[in-house]
Amino acid sequence: MEDPLLPLVDKADKADTIPLDHETRAHGDDHEALRLWLRLLTCTNLIESAIRADLRRDFDVTLPRFDLMAQLYRHAGGLKMGELSQRLMVTGGNVTGIADQLAKEGLVAREPDPDDRRAWRLSLTPAGRQAFARMAALHEGWVIDLMRGLAEPERAQLHALLGRLKSTVSANAGA
Amino acid sequence: MEDPLLPLVDKADKADTIPLDHETRAHGDDHEALRLWLRLLTCTNLIESAIRADLRRDFDVTLPRFDLMAQLYRHAGGLKMGELSQRLMVTGGNVTGIADQLAKEGLVAREPDPDDRRAWRLSLTPAGRQAFARMAALHEGWVIDLMRGLAEPERAQLHALLGRLKSTVSANAGA
Repeated sequence: MEDPLLPLVDKADKADTIPLDHETRAHGDDHEALRLWLRLLTCTNLIESAIRADLRRDFDVTLPRFDLMAQLYRHAGGLKMGELSQRLMVTGGNVTGIADQLAKEGLVAREPDPDDRRAWRLSLTPAGRQAFARMAALHEGWVIDLMRGLAEPERAQLHALLGRLKSTVSANAGA
Repeated sequence: MEDPLLPLVDKADKADTIPLDHETRAHGDDHEALRLWLRLLTCTNLIESAIRADLRRDFDVTLPRFDLMAQLYRHAGGLKMGELSQRLMVTGGNVTGIADQLAKEGLVAREPDPDDRRAWRLSLTPAGRQAFARMAALHEGWVIDLMRGLAEPERAQLHALLGRLKSTVSANAGA
């Protein structure tokens, strides 16, 4: 009898001949929802890896550092350490370590929070804002290049479908 | 003059009223490719978080541990530590630590590689295969539930668009 479940198994085991990515976990017989998820994960990982490599090559900067600066850039009034950590949860960087380094380089300023004397409030210095703006401009160009393989109407369609997925997953996760 | 670049900045700064995710980095004026990328990242992170939570709740298991067992399940002949690490790069778990723990629980067997006496070859024990199969069956159900918000034709369309994206990003990254 065929093994009835084992959705993550590629019975043909083509692992040595096809690129290593999460989709190599999937098999044609798997439920299509699982194959869709593994393809979504693969696309995200491919693009994130490319961006990490670009940031390292052009700026010698990690993605968590870029994301931290992006958050501070958005919040010109600064953010408390706890707020920053929460916003950067997904990137998984060591917020304190990155903030220390940025402060040492003069890109981030720290001052006591006016509403909570025990907390530090972080913000970008003018030099920090300038440094981030330079990175962000290139970053946008990389992303445009990475997405160029899809025609504009396909990108619009993908954006709409992911919007629907996002809202239903959010609702589901909150339930 | 309007700041010309700053693609990651939400000038309206609605951060306090909308959920925290990567899309909150994007602004309506940003290039649509950037908004598409941030939405893709958000969807992936939402689904991955839900799966992490499900694995923890039902099996007290981390995602890197699940992924490691999935790889060994696929490769009934076992994998060398180095091969495993390469395959699990994206998940970012500590392969050695997880493998040690699985061996201690009798779910993974380690033996010297016949072709390379200095290397260890890992495989799932029968108990390990059984434990993984149980998790994989539930895992598939979670993913089906998470994707249920899209109708079947929408999932097929999304799968096709992501397939095109994946192949062009791979080609781009390899160039």
